[in-house]
Amino acid sequence: MNDSDLRPGEVAVPPPQGFDASLHFIGVIRTPWQQRRDCPRRGSADGPDCRIELDPRWQQALQGLEIPSRVQVLYWMHQSRRDLVLQVPASRGQPLGSFALRSPVRPNPIASSVVELVGIAGCTLTVRGLDCIDGTPLLDLKPEHGLAKG
Amino acid sequence: MNDSDLRPGEVAVPPPQGFDASLHFIGVIRTPWQQRRDCPRRGSADGPDCRIELDPRWQQALQGLEIPSRVQVLYWMHQSRRDLVLQVPASRGQPLGSFALRSPVRPNPIASSVVELVGIAGCTLTVRGLDCIDGTPLLDLKPEHGLAKG
Repeated sequence: MNDSDLRPGEVAVPPPQGFDASLHFIGVIRTPWQQRRDCPRRGSADGPDCRIELDPRWQQALQGLEIPSRVQVLYWMHQSRRDLVLQVPASRGQPLGSFALRSPVRPNPIASSVVELVGIAGCTLTVRGLDCIDGTPLLDLKPEHGLAKG
Repeated sequence: MNDSDLRPGEVAVPPPQGFDASLHFIGVIRTPWQQRRDCPRRGSADGPDCRIELDPRWQQALQGLEIPSRVQVLYWMHQSRRDLVLQVPASRGQPLGSFALRSPVRPNPIASSVVELVGIAGCTLTVRGLDCIDGTPLLDLKPEHGLAKG
């Protein structure tokens, strides 16, 4: 993308040189939505079942996840530009800072959703409440509440 | 670290070759706790004020954050190993999967805390409810609720 994609009032900044840490994609999220414009604005427990396909390398890490339970899903919004500091949401018409929005556009496009985990079969989790596009890379799963430290 | 650091029942797996995405550290978190063993088990709104020092590059992205408000903070647990799939929390004595714990030890050591934002001065945010060590790298700030999509 380039600045011609900016709406009036939006501001991009030059990104930092280089990066500071790196991520493993640990699985992929399967949803009914092929493009961002198809996605619901916010996931709902009344929404369709979605699948999280975990890389088998990490399967043992699922041990002890309860069904049903509420699970926090972190994922990578791989289609998002990262350089906007002010954005104009279509529903608002005036600029807001990226940290005042839950927009996918942010310096580190990590999304966080709390979903209902309704099933696990092997490396496939069935959840309700996601709102991301099909093929979104998975970063992490955590119980919504639970033991924080060892 | 190596396998001699594992408790009985803990299991490490070989990490994937290479990485899939990269992060910018966008600031640093200042807390009273210099080592992990000093940190509270869970942040509390009754806890001490902590500071988030945002890189000035991103300052405009704070525009519109409300004070007071509840803000989700994502940060990087830079001291954590990433290869454990089963962990034995000291408080439990039996192994649990890393995705069934909110332990810092996980394939992508991203933490998520919801804090009370009580002040902003320039690039410095004052918040209550963190539980991480001093010097922790910041990844993202989001309103706990709010506009999701543009």
